[in-house]
Amino acid sequence: MELWVTEEHLKAVRLSYKITETLYHGESSFQTIDVVDTVAYGRMLLLDGLVMTTEKDEFVYHEMISHIPMLAHPNPKKVLVIGGGDGGTVREVLKHPSVEEVVLCEIDGDVIDVSRRFLPSIAGKLDEPRVDIQVRDGVAYIAEQKNRFDVILIDSTDPIGPGEGLFTEEFYRNVKAALTENGIMANQSESPVANPREIRLVYTLLGKVFPAVVPYVATIPTYPGHYWSWAFCSESRKPSDGFDNPVAAELEKDCRFFNRDVHKAVFALPNFVRERIYGEAGVAASC
Amino acid sequence: MELWVTEEHLKAVRLSYKITETLYHGESSFQTIDVVDTVAYGRMLLLDGLVMTTEKDEFVYHEMISHIPMLAHPNPKKVLVIGGGDGGTVREVLKHPSVEEVVLCEIDGDVIDVSRRFLPSIAGKLDEPRVDIQVRDGVAYIAEQKNRFDVILIDSTDPIGPGEGLFTEEFYRNVKAALTENGIMANQSESPVANPREIRLVYTLLGKVFPAVVPYVATIPTYPGHYWSWAFCSESRKPSDGFDNPVAAELEKDCRFFNRDVHKAVFALPNFVRERIYGEAGVAASC
Repeated sequence: MELWVTEEHLKAVRLSYKITETLYHGESSFQTIDVVDTVAYGRMLLLDGLVMTTEKDEFVYHEMISHIPMLAHPNPKKVLVIGGGDGGTVREVLKHPSVEEVVLCEIDGDVIDVSRRFLPSIAGKLDEPRVDIQVRDGVAYIAEQKNRFDVILIDSTDPIGPGEGLFTEEFYRNVKAALTENGIMANQSESPVANPREIRLVYTLLGKVFPAVVPYVATIPTYPGHYWSWAFCSESRKPSDGFDNPVAAELEKDCRFFNRDVHKAVFALPNFVRERIYGEAGVAASC
Repeated sequence: MELWVTEEHLKAVRLSYKITETLYHGESSFQTIDVVDTVAYGRMLLLDGLVMTTEKDEFVYHEMISHIPMLAHPNPKKVLVIGGGDGGTVREVLKHPSVEEVVLCEIDGDVIDVSRRFLPSIAGKLDEPRVDIQVRDGVAYIAEQKNRFDVILIDSTDPIGPGEGLFTEEFYRNVKAALTENGIMANQSESPVANPREIRLVYTLLGKVFPAVVPYVATIPTYPGHYWSWAFCSESRKPSDGFDNPVAAELEKDCRFFNRDVHKAVFALPNFVRERIYGEAGVAASC
């Protein structure tokens, strides 16, 4: 018998992966959680049937959401990750020697437990002493935080389901208020290929809150559209502030996607991406 | 009834596209040819069941294989495209005002005919007077050409089937002999995600023939691994020779992927790509 897991997008594209084993299936209070072992991409975590991360390509997403904003901050000590229960973003943040505390605010404790159990290469740093895990709704949590975090990373699911509240103007305003001076936020901002409506919405909302909103892009084989975007947002910092950060030289030795060439290249948006973010006559913000 | 077309890779990943219509199915002397209309990516050309191009994402491949080498040449007049029967590469080459002649050498005349009939947005420039179509085996054709072409683009299928002869050291030596002084060759060099063995083979062979072999990469949603590579090869030119080419400023207005920022960014290879091309301790060639 052959087992395959299939993710379907917009009733038009199906991505199917042959699996050798179903490792976990469960219903949390928020969503269905599955872990399967795929032939092509190793172990794969799915939430409500959507691929969240795989052992073999997770490094792209986690290195991109963390190192680009972290390096642009002169001295990031306190970092907040909202979502990201698999632990991959926390693992990358901890590679920065200045970090004293990473708060992981994940709404679904089961995602953390399942990741610890089945995805140790991703979740393996969640027990480090610098990590404070808060199993809470990120929307409520962020509203209580003022002037506290140097970097905030929104490692959310899509704008449907438990992640919906993480894509609103009010949420972004609360994130801004939770940042310290020189603070930087980055979030995943969907696929320029698969989510043209969502990406436009995200950048419209972010542009109302942050004076500098700079998109960047990379290939993620197992995500819809296979081309993903993140937004760098700050009141005072810009991505290029990180280009000469001496931390980058050490960091790139311990990364599978990031290096100093990639650091600059991810801000080059192809014409069709500029159009989808900024409209037909769109001009990209300078990085 | 729902119709879907499925491409399978390495018996481990399947990519399926919902189709509204089957437009063509036929057997040529070389391969099976299909054209279907997909919901997500418009019309799609398949050869032996493998996706060759789609209306909605073909621009990435065709702009990348052509503009990067073309812009690095000071005055490309004679251009040869081997393979590329869908006409997309020829269409992009013709955007360069210096071009006097483009020879398209495609082994399978049926691919040209089917593309003209069903993919006019891709094949529509094949009847321009500057285009000379040769329905011939590229391996035999190139062996007869000496010091004739300024730019040669190898727009091949994979190293299995009709395209196999386009991935050998002898073929690359013949390509080099067919180039004029300052001549540049580029070829598609497979996926760093889906074809780690093939990509290593291609760069090993190219390195035996050309003193400068510079890989570049971009996302192609409908190709295996969704991340693709091309090799820029020359005896005397390097990609950065094209960075200040004034043609680029005009060209980017007529492209959907290429622009001057992208021109430089595609040479930034993520660490895992460097490793797959050059080995663990690999260092990328300078562009």
